[in-house]
Amino acid sequence: MRLSTPNIQLNEKGKLRHFLTLEGLKHHHLTEILDVAESFIDPLTGEINKLDTLHGKAIMNLFFEPSTRTLTTFEIAEKRLSADVVNLNIETSSTKKGETLLDTLWNLEAMLADMFVVRHSESGAAHFIAKHVAPHVHVVNAGDGQHAHPTQAMLDVFTIRKHKGDIFDLKVAIIGDVQHSRVVRSQIQALSILEAREIRVIGPKTLLPSHPEALGIHVYDNVEEGLEGVDVVINVRLQNERMKSALLPSEKEFFNLYGLTKERLAYAKPDAIVMHPGPINRGVEIDSEVADGEQSVILEQVTYGIAVRMAVMSIIFRNSQELQEEKRQALLDLNMMETSE
Amino acid sequence: MRLSTPNIQLNEKGKLRHFLTLEGLKHHHLTEILDVAESFIDPLTGEINKLDTLHGKAIMNLFFEPSTRTLTTFEIAEKRLSADVVNLNIETSSTKKGETLLDTLWNLEAMLADMFVVRHSESGAAHFIAKHVAPHVHVVNAGDGQHAHPTQAMLDVFTIRKHKGDIFDLKVAIIGDVQHSRVVRSQIQALSILEAREIRVIGPKTLLPSHPEALGIHVYDNVEEGLEGVDVVINVRLQNERMKSALLPSEKEFFNLYGLTKERLAYAKPDAIVMHPGPINRGVEIDSEVADGEQSVILEQVTYGIAVRMAVMSIIFRNSQELQEEKRQALLDLNMMETSE
Amino acid sequence: MRLSTPNIQLNEKGKLRHFLTLEGLKHHHLTEILDVAESFIDPLTGEINKLDTLHGKAIMNLFFEPSTRTLTTFEIAEKRLSADVVNLNIETSSTKKGETLLDTLWNLEAMLADMFVVRHSESGAAHFIAKHVAPHVHVVNAGDGQHAHPTQAMLDVFTIRKHKGDIFDLKVAIIGDVQHSRVVRSQIQALSILEAREIRVIGPKTLLPSHPEALGIHVYDNVEEGLEGVDVVINVRLQNERMKSALLPSEKEFFNLYGLTKERLAYAKPDAIVMHPGPINRGVEIDSEVADGEQSVILEQVTYGIAVRMAVMSIIFRNSQELQEEKRQALLDLNMMETSE
Repeated sequence: MRLSTPNIQLNEKGKLRHFLTLEGLKHHHLTEILDVAESFIDPLTGEINKLDTLHGKAIMNLFFEPSTRTLTTFEIAEKRLSADVVNLNIETSSTKKGETLLDTLWNLEAMLADMFVVRHSESGAAHFIAKHVAPHVHVVNAGDGQHAHPTQAMLDVFTIRKHKGDIFDLKVAIIGDVQHSRVVRSQIQALSILEAREIRVIGPKTLLPSHPEALGIHVYDNVEEGLEGVDVVINVRLQNERMKSALLPSEKEFFNLYGLTKERLAYAKPDAIVMHPGPINRGVEIDSEVADGEQSVILEQVTYGIAVRMAVMSIIFRNSQELQEEKRQALLDLNMMETSE
Repeated sequence: MRLSTPNIQLNEKGKLRHFLTLEGLKHHHLTEILDVAESFIDPLTGEINKLDTLHGKAIMNLFFEPSTRTLTTFEIAEKRLSADVVNLNIETSSTKKGETLLDTLWNLEAMLADMFVVRHSESGAAHFIAKHVAPHVHVVNAGDGQHAHPTQAMLDVFTIRKHKGDIFDLKVAIIGDVQHSRVVRSQIQALSILEAREIRVIGPKTLLPSHPEALGIHVYDNVEEGLEGVDVVINVRLQNERMKSALLPSEKEFFNLYGLTKERLAYAKPDAIVMHPGPINRGVEIDSEVADGEQSVILEQVTYGIAVRMAVMSIIFRNSQELQEEKRQALLDLNMMETSE
Repeated sequence: MRLSTPNIQLNEKGKLRHFLTLEGLKHHHLTEILDVAESFIDPLTGEINKLDTLHGKAIMNLFFEPSTRTLTTFEIAEKRLSADVVNLNIETSSTKKGETLLDTLWNLEAMLADMFVVRHSESGAAHFIAKHVAPHVHVVNAGDGQHAHPTQAMLDVFTIRKHKGDIFDLKVAIIGDVQHSRVVRSQIQALSILEAREIRVIGPKTLLPSHPEALGIHVYDNVEEGLEGVDVVINVRLQNERMKSALLPSEKEFFNLYGLTKERLAYAKPDAIVMHPGPINRGVEIDSEVADGEQSVILEQVTYGIAVRMAVMSIIFRNSQELQEEKRQALLDLNMMETSE
């Protein structure tokens, strides 16, 4: 399934207009997001100040799939940039009355939405919406099906950069229920674009990607081998839904085979950091001793998620503003030329 | 059923204090709303700027009946005027604990609400509330039972004026499931007050008003005849609930008999505009070719709905402010007279 | 059950850091809240102005137990202080996905929450949360199980002070379904701290506290005796849940025995005020004639609830700010000393 038509998320100057996926983005796109996010964090206090950047902008959070955690971080990020925020639980909306998704979308757009933050259980939903919005409206993907969760991946690489400096030269292992995970897909893309030295994926054989070489990654079904000498361990959660499908053994068995314990973590570098997109299942994919341990940066990730989402949104609006101004200037220049003739 | 006690929505100077119905309002009341709405729209960009007008005002959206679309447009309008907005889903509130509606209302009023925007499935609910609020509290009707939906009608006439100039001299046809529709009732009132040359209502005989002459309108159960030579076609949605009551044939049959198709629209003037309050049922009361066609201004209506709602709310608060200042001045004058005696 | 570890809600300078219970607070703590609340109310108009005090602060309303009334008053108070407000309905959150309460809490904290307003059906929930938040995060108890509802009690004493001046020298009777009521517990504490001359509790024997002397209160199961000569009558609501447990007779019987009627109120002082935390059950614990009568100040209580909640929140943030500045100053002084050496 190829969801990202080339460049749909880039404007005519190659800059971010939407933020749908990391696929097709360049090193400089990601670095800009990381740098802007960094600039929001007070170097002394670690706090993120409230800014007026999006004053007067209307952002609609369209959550077709419930997610308190992601919704709240976006809401906080939007309000910290002084945007007007409207949360829409689409299940209770007009779609009930027989309106199609596109009609709903066009109506919300006509309500002067400047940006949609979209969460949907179907892969490609954010792209579909981005294809159909007006030129001045922006779309941010907050997770679509098994496809992508790009702001999550960006906060992950932001966290890594904070602790390890440049991503280049790092060995990163992703461990857990990795198959069909939109978080993992996006993480691999982010790490690849930022040229991590080595990306490893560790999990039960049944869950591993079937063509790892195409992704430029290494797969392991042995945890100790996979963790050997890495700088970063990203643990992903066990989707309980999967248990039913018999692809996975019981929770207890999963923990015995792939749970991240202190003993296993010892195979990584001594100063390796441990990350997790949350919410964590203690004793299922991660041991509490690790989750709450010194190497864990799990809660920092959450805070950085605010800064990264603020960065993505402000970059998109700045790019839009720049483009508009250039067009206006070009028009003015044209008028002057005509006048002087 | 006479819901509107004369002038309950007007203050002692004959200006809007509440906005409950169009019944009893004068030409100048409606024109003022249209003019103020117009002033909010940037003539160059078509955008609506954020204003500080209602900074510090608390507006409570009391939706006893769910409606994402109407709630969202009000919410956007309120936030664009910088009001503090609280959404109340009344079904989960104290009414459960045995509190009466009036007790709930008085409590919300005591929470320093300056305005209630009320949606209710019972006709007269907004009037009932307006009768019981304190003098400084305002009520806007966002749809009550089969009675009225005045802001919807105002955005409709705003849209007509945008495209056709003065309403006077226009022939307007309302087509669809017109019986007991609060939207249609309010549209007829708005068009009458603004002295539209001719108002026609088209629908199945079972759905047509029984005493059209009393309303000053013409009724048609033949679509082609009804559309002949009109300037504006307002299509209203088929309430699915009605199908059950056997008042209406099947959706397919309804479309065959009364659906707005390109062929039927051809009976109207070539430059006639097509409107619909939304959400549309494609292939039921309107054909996609018409809904998405060049004559359709359906999505513009949504945008204008923001401007019109902003206008209604700011006019009400301005009137309130004026009255307070006049009273204060009168009191000062009185004091001076007494002092000088 | 001892829920309040000594001083957990006070900072190292003995000032409010959280607001969890009235137990352990001093006269000056309560007086400060009352005075600050008073300062928010315009003496001429009775209105409460919007302030910038909490601009940039993020307040999360964590309601594990639904309560439109309390949530709305907090929301209004927070917005009137210009805070960024996020409402979280915890039942739909990550707790579903198997995350523990503490993990949820730490995640919300990492989302840069500055304050949690907590409502929970279990006694001690707010304390539990306060014990686990970071030093810069504050907790306000909006009602926990049968334990406490301190902002409610503060608005009650505020209302009494507004009408009667100093609490000292007043006789106050609390009447109704008093057993296990968090509201009553907190009211008794507030009145004791402010040294009310006499606190009486009136209700069916089955509902009365078993060791009144320990609380410094007088209990009555005869309404007339209990109301004799009091300055203030606080009526509390009959919890319908209780009827089922057979602790109480029917609603009608309860009204006959303990309902607050005009006749019974006549036993109190002629200028006694009548209060009720709401929502009222007309004809169950209170007669409409009393609820709507001249001595009733029930709706004023609601308004004062906004002012008192604004006061609690601004005092907490001011104390936090002061402490930070003192520490910074101390650090600067230390540096200067070192430099000058």
